[in-house]
Amino acid sequence: MKRIRLTVAYDGTDYCGWQIQPNGITIEEMLNRAIRNLTGEEIRVIGASRTDSGVHALGNVAVFDTESAIPPERMSYALNQRLPGDIVVVRSEEVAPDWHPRYQDHIRKTYEYHIYNGEAPNPLRKRYSAYLSYPLDIERMREGAAYLVGEHDFASFCCVRSQVEHTVRTIEELTITREGPEIVIRVSGNGFLYNMVRIIAGTLIRVGRGFYGPEKLKEILEEKKRTNAGVTAPPEGLVLTEILYF
Amino acid sequence: MKRIRLTVAYDGTDYCGWQIQPNGITIEEMLNRAIRNLTGEEIRVIGASRTDSGVHALGNVAVFDTESAIPPERMSYALNQRLPGDIVVVRSEEVAPDWHPRYQDHIRKTYEYHIYNGEAPNPLRKRYSAYLSYPLDIERMREGAAYLVGEHDFASFCCVRSQVEHTVRTIEELTITREGPEIVIRVSGNGFLYNMVRIIAGTLIRVGRGFYGPEKLKEILEEKKRTNAGVTAPPEGLVLTEILYF
Repeated sequence: MKRIRLTVAYDGTDYCGWQIQPNGITIEEMLNRAIRNLTGEEIRVIGASRTDSGVHALGNVAVFDTESAIPPERMSYALNQRLPGDIVVVRSEEVAPDWHPRYQDHIRKTYEYHIYNGEAPNPLRKRYSAYLSYPLDIERMREGAAYLVGEHDFASFCCVRSQVEHTVRTIEELTITREGPEIVIRVSGNGFLYNMVRIIAGTLIRVGRGFYGPEKLKEILEEKKRTNAGVTAPPEGLVLTEILYF
Repeated sequence: MKRIRLTVAYDGTDYCGWQIQPNGITIEEMLNRAIRNLTGEEIRVIGASRTDSGVHALGNVAVFDTESAIPPERMSYALNQRLPGDIVVVRSEEVAPDWHPRYQDHIRKTYEYHIYNGEAPNPLRKRYSAYLSYPLDIERMREGAAYLVGEHDFASFCCVRSQVEHTVRTIEELTITREGPEIVIRVSGNGFLYNMVRIIAGTLIRVGRGFYGPEKLKEILEEKKRTNAGVTAPPEGLVLTEILYF
């Protein structure tokens, strides 16, 4: 029995997120089907990050156990022949039999939130960004973002439907860059609460628009109430770019 | 009667190109429908560039004549309410009643051909690039491209189905850039033959792969036979980025 780790990229537009559910096709389900088709075994992958409906990934991670004799490094190629073009196994490799993609001491996840901030929408960026026509003050957004870096209780930035008990997380880096009309909020940390990156994006957009002062971020953090933060920014702007195990 | 010029951007993936045809939905047809819905007039647009099935645009141009009292600059907004999200009117403005988007003395069209040249395909670039896994030598491609710049008879780079008589065109600029796995062939000129940019891309890919020497481009130009050039590169990599009237 071997444990195989897959690094998975996908365009989430046409999927109901990662996790298997009764009412729609998910990434997890497509991976399970491809692996069963390849190995003939009743396999279910274990994923690192259960991305939401419409959210994209360049480096989500999943593992599964198999008796298959196919060399682990060749599995990516064989699986890609059995997956639709909007899901790609970027890499496959053998890991220790007890290696788990979520329970690791040293994880660093990186997400990017993309905003297309032009006078008119760009149809070539529609699937992969949130469109905002009004001007955003990047400098103010950066000032606000600075309050979020470090270890904090992010209860205000967690979807109310979430049931996690501990809402303390560490954001190691949070940068905001602009290239022409494309704004990228890039955030790295040891873990993120449900909807946390999209709520951070929605709140920073309010700061960029001038509805909130940058120092409002400090206040929102301290109040620990979801209702004080901005709206959850739409899923199409979000990409899970990397999960680093170190 | 006013003549209105539209600058149009679209994701061509789900359309059978620009020009109206019996067997599929086209960009031209969607624009006509939206304008008819807005003005109540039986209008047909005249387009600058009849892009092929699957080809994208950021700045195609079309005109139409209308009696509508809607201010010309506001038409873009009103039309975008009536168009699907993958077609966007970026700008609308009044032009002289005899202004024609194709018959102008000073036109400069710019196209980009995008290649995703990574170890694995990137699902977020699948709709907007051609995927090539083998290494490409950009320097050799640039050497080859240099032979194409200037005024030449591009008969070798024209689809055999084309019926144009004159195949002399001027390429003013042809650059090849690489940023990470993304290679962009950017070409500007006063006009392009049917499939010309995609045949140039296909031929330069052969040079980058090492099948052709860079000097082969000179030979192909001189022979004036379509069969000597490379294959027509796939449509999803092509974007008509700008049409400049000066």
